[in-house]
Amino acid sequence: MNNIKKSEKNQKPRRVAIGPSSFAAEDKTPSRILEESGVEIVPNPYGRRLTEEEIIGHLAGVDGLIAGLEPLNRKVLLSASSLKSIARVGIGMDNIDQETAEELGIRVSNTPDGPTQAVAELCLAALLCLERQVIACSTDLHLGIWKKRMGNGLMGTRVLLVGYGRIGRKFGEILRFFGAKILVTDPNISPESLERGELSVPLEQGIRDAEVISLHAGGRKTILREKEFREMRPGIILLNSARGELVEEKALIWALEKGTVKAAWMDAFCSEPYSGRLTEFDQVLLTPHTGTYTRQCRRSMEEAAVRNLLRDLG
Amino acid sequence: MNNIKKSEKNQKPRRVAIGPSSFAAEDKTPSRILEESGVEIVPNPYGRRLTEEEIIGHLAGVDGLIAGLEPLNRKVLLSASSLKSIARVGIGMDNIDQETAEELGIRVSNTPDGPTQAVAELCLAALLCLERQVIACSTDLHLGIWKKRMGNGLMGTRVLLVGYGRIGRKFGEILRFFGAKILVTDPNISPESLERGELSVPLEQGIRDAEVISLHAGGRKTILREKEFREMRPGIILLNSARGELVEEKALIWALEKGTVKAAWMDAFCSEPYSGRLTEFDQVLLTPHTGTYTRQCRRSMEEAAVRNLLRDLG
Repeated sequence: MNNIKKSEKNQKPRRVAIGPSSFAAEDKTPSRILEESGVEIVPNPYGRRLTEEEIIGHLAGVDGLIAGLEPLNRKVLLSASSLKSIARVGIGMDNIDQETAEELGIRVSNTPDGPTQAVAELCLAALLCLERQVIACSTDLHLGIWKKRMGNGLMGTRVLLVGYGRIGRKFGEILRFFGAKILVTDPNISPESLERGELSVPLEQGIRDAEVISLHAGGRKTILREKEFREMRPGIILLNSARGELVEEKALIWALEKGTVKAAWMDAFCSEPYSGRLTEFDQVLLTPHTGTYTRQCRRSMEEAAVRNLLRDLG
Repeated sequence: MNNIKKSEKNQKPRRVAIGPSSFAAEDKTPSRILEESGVEIVPNPYGRRLTEEEIIGHLAGVDGLIAGLEPLNRKVLLSASSLKSIARVGIGMDNIDQETAEELGIRVSNTPDGPTQAVAELCLAALLCLERQVIACSTDLHLGIWKKRMGNGLMGTRVLLVGYGRIGRKFGEILRFFGAKILVTDPNISPESLERGELSVPLEQGIRDAEVISLHAGGRKTILREKEFREMRPGIILLNSARGELVEEKALIWALEKGTVKAAWMDAFCSEPYSGRLTEFDQVLLTPHTGTYTRQCRRSMEEAAVRNLLRDLG
């Protein structure tokens, strides 16, 4: 009822800017919901992530933003005088200055449930790929080289999950299904939430014991530096689907060269698009931040963000 | 008791030939068990799979064989006059002429339980890799190209399992855990063994409905020819971890060129080492028959085969 009254009073159609270049690219349902609610859509004109200057221009005169990872800092938000609501497609909101948004009365939402399975499935794909040396095998065979490589199964493998939120828990649940042993380190963990055989350990202990370390922590704090790599068992596998900032790249390269890290997967980088030194290492699997890039996940997150935005615009 | 009596009577130590070039390469426990039982080990002198002529020479004067996929046909078995027992490391026994073995009183065993999880994990690795385009993403990023590709998750994906024995069932159980819909086709299936939401369908129907087809059938019968590929939905993923003979390669290449098969994974080939035309297709993931190549699996299968052989040698 509220929605109808407001839109009847409001003669000018509300304008919604789209941040993510991939929005509704595979499935038009989310744009259709926006259009059917009478909203005027302002598409991303660049076909890639917007810079600070570009997002300032993009937000001029709009009421709402469907947000990706654009820099929505204090300067940007102060310039967006008509903005009432930001609906992030995804979980992380590090790119949004939430204090300033609150100060300005801009409502901010995210879609915390959508990406869980998609990210956990890509974590598993990466881990199995690295454990079984799938890429090296396939590259060889395409060159006519038949070379069997011994791999590791998941049964009994000790995996440290750094961060035990939605995705960490989901990945842990999957790994337990395959018989892996799960170590967990998370400062915010409540003991009663651990009841399925995971072992909660301090970071220092987990790093020393793990055969696989998978990062699922939020925030921008660096967790793995040379000191931590020095404590690890030789030949670990490192997975990072969370944040580039969690790992000091120089230290990781040192650990790769030394063999402490025998293989790694990175889906998140400090600066994206990434083109740094990790691209020189065959034993590093690299994906361009596609943890949430499944049709199932994109559609469910985009729909959730659209509904959040329409709710918050009133 | 039986063992002790026989070996006391028998002055000459029993000789056991090793077929698989990888036997005890990673973990010496299986050879140690053989040695501790007083057996003389005849290692594989070639470091690769033996030909008919080579295995005939290798079997001269031995009592037992730890077998891989050597051609143990009628000619070979008739020539192996001292052979009393064959213990296959693995499941498939198509390489062994079991009728002739029975006629000659040669005891034959296999290790049906060992490989299940290792093969199912590699099937999952391959499926997730192909659904998420992991290799294309990583290859691009190593070349400095940041290109996001949309993938498919497992939730709701219709997977046809052709053959529903140990490995088919295990892979089905894993896929159901991720929310995939499982179709099963197997002439030997009993209706009461289907109670977890799988749908048993005739091959023709499964082929028309599936988005992913995964082969887990035994035997040498060809299941997929051009006729079957013509019935499939465009853009399917094909997985073959079972037998090269199940797919007519010429028909698969036709289907890849046409786009009926958008991506495929082959771990088994009619002739190994494989160097055929599938190596020309980037969208075909190829592994050199490493379904069972995990440390966990090899050790458990090798130990089981050694115990089977010692039991059968008496």
